[in-house]
Amino acid sequence: MLNEIVDINHKKVSDKIKDFIRKKVEEASANGVVIGLSGGLDSTVTCYLAKEAIGPEKVLALIMPNSNLKDSLEDAKDAEMIAKDLRISYKKIDIAPKLEEILKDLPKEKVAAGNLSARLRMSLLYYYANLSNRLVIGTGDKSEFLIGYFTKYGDGGADFLPIADLYKLQVRELAKYLSIPQKIIQKSSSPRLWDEHEAEGEIGLKYEEIDQILYCMIEKNMNTKEIKSKLNLDERRIDKVISMVEKSEHKRRIPEICIL
Amino acid sequence: MLNEIVDINHKKVSDKIKDFIRKKVEEASANGVVIGLSGGLDSTVTCYLAKEAIGPEKVLALIMPNSNLKDSLEDAKDAEMIAKDLRISYKKIDIAPKLEEILKDLPKEKVAAGNLSARLRMSLLYYYANLSNRLVIGTGDKSEFLIGYFTKYGDGGADFLPIADLYKLQVRELAKYLSIPQKIIQKSSSPRLWDEHEAEGEIGLKYEEIDQILYCMIEKNMNTKEIKSKLNLDERRIDKVISMVEKSEHKRRIPEICIL
Repeated sequence: MLNEIVDINHKKVSDKIKDFIRKKVEEASANGVVIGLSGGLDSTVTCYLAKEAIGPEKVLALIMPNSNLKDSLEDAKDAEMIAKDLRISYKKIDIAPKLEEILKDLPKEKVAAGNLSARLRMSLLYYYANLSNRLVIGTGDKSEFLIGYFTKYGDGGADFLPIADLYKLQVRELAKYLSIPQKIIQKSSSPRLWDEHEAEGEIGLKYEEIDQILYCMIEKNMNTKEIKSKLNLDERRIDKVISMVEKSEHKRRIPEICIL
Repeated sequence: MLNEIVDINHKKVSDKIKDFIRKKVEEASANGVVIGLSGGLDSTVTCYLAKEAIGPEKVLALIMPNSNLKDSLEDAKDAEMIAKDLRISYKKIDIAPKLEEILKDLPKEKVAAGNLSARLRMSLLYYYANLSNRLVIGTGDKSEFLIGYFTKYGDGGADFLPIADLYKLQVRELAKYLSIPQKIIQKSSSPRLWDEHEAEGEIGLKYEEIDQILYCMIEKNMNTKEIKSKLNLDERRIDKVISMVEKSEHKRRIPEICIL
């Protein structure tokens, strides 16, 4: 199953994504894109493709570490390296003092504050998009999208999603094809919303497991029973992923309207 | 045409909206809703309906004036009056110092900063929603929704939209039925994103005009030629509204994914 998932035609896939990026920017008569570059895998892959699609001068990266989190600054250095390698413009904005001011006099809570930082980053991306008539390019992958592992109107808030039909394992493969630095490819996935925040740890499953379950569910259209007999995985893990997909449906839709 | 638009069955419409609010809160097993109460018509009507639907103890209002805008503080006083009348909990949060900190060292631009304040308000609503397991109830009406007169992922960012199938003129009628204070009903519509910001002034059309054009376009399914012959309005105004609907389509959809 793993082999089947990662067996993608890299050239075909990256050409299609680049065409898509070009088309979206043209359709909107935009001057280019703004991207939130975190130093992680997804945003780096998206940035490489955007640069190849529309040229480095049309890609503006915002690097938005939270200086109160130690891993975040380390990531920001990687992001800066990527931006320099690609010769794109970038701005570094520490969100820590902004978050502190927003949270002043409010009750403190870790997860709520984490989601707030994702929404602040989205707001800054749109601020720069507004200033220069650019689109905000989203960087989420299909695995995160399906299990709802993103902040609604935070990192989920963008104008278009070029790599959201690629599972995390496929993004890793594409990254190798694009010659993205090994350090980025090997880094463990993290939204960095708080200290030592790590995706697989928080979810409680490896992406190898998540992607196999999702692949059976979505691409093979299997029901729970079929997935359980196909995959050699703890049944509770399979139930968990299926439940995450179902519970996060509202994040993949526009808000429901009361039709009169 | 105006008579036809405002001829709604108030009791039936409000009952249906209240059922919808109740259903959404129950489905999500949420403890209630958080609403951004501006002191304007739409959020007041939504707040009245929410209170009647789920009871005052399940409605939390955030009143979020920008103290740098003089009209905003006046509105906040009205919002406070509404919250007290309805006996719902509310918190007043001045967004001015938060906006200033976010904008520190960034290039200044009025419209971008206006959109930023809408996104900051959304972020604060979700912060409180996260803290207390509530849903964010959206307050946009159908006229704004169709012409795209809202900030993407700002006031447009909510979990469900109870009055988004009611045109502005219909919301005004419903407000009378709900015995909402005259002052709120008569107030000119405004997103209050900057000083002296006024909806009809910014759009360049009265809601009486906008709603008639939209009603012909959406409810009567008329084409541009038919609308022009039906309505006794300047053709350029009709073209403008139609163009606003078309150009804002991306705001009413989830971001497009590159399908591979």
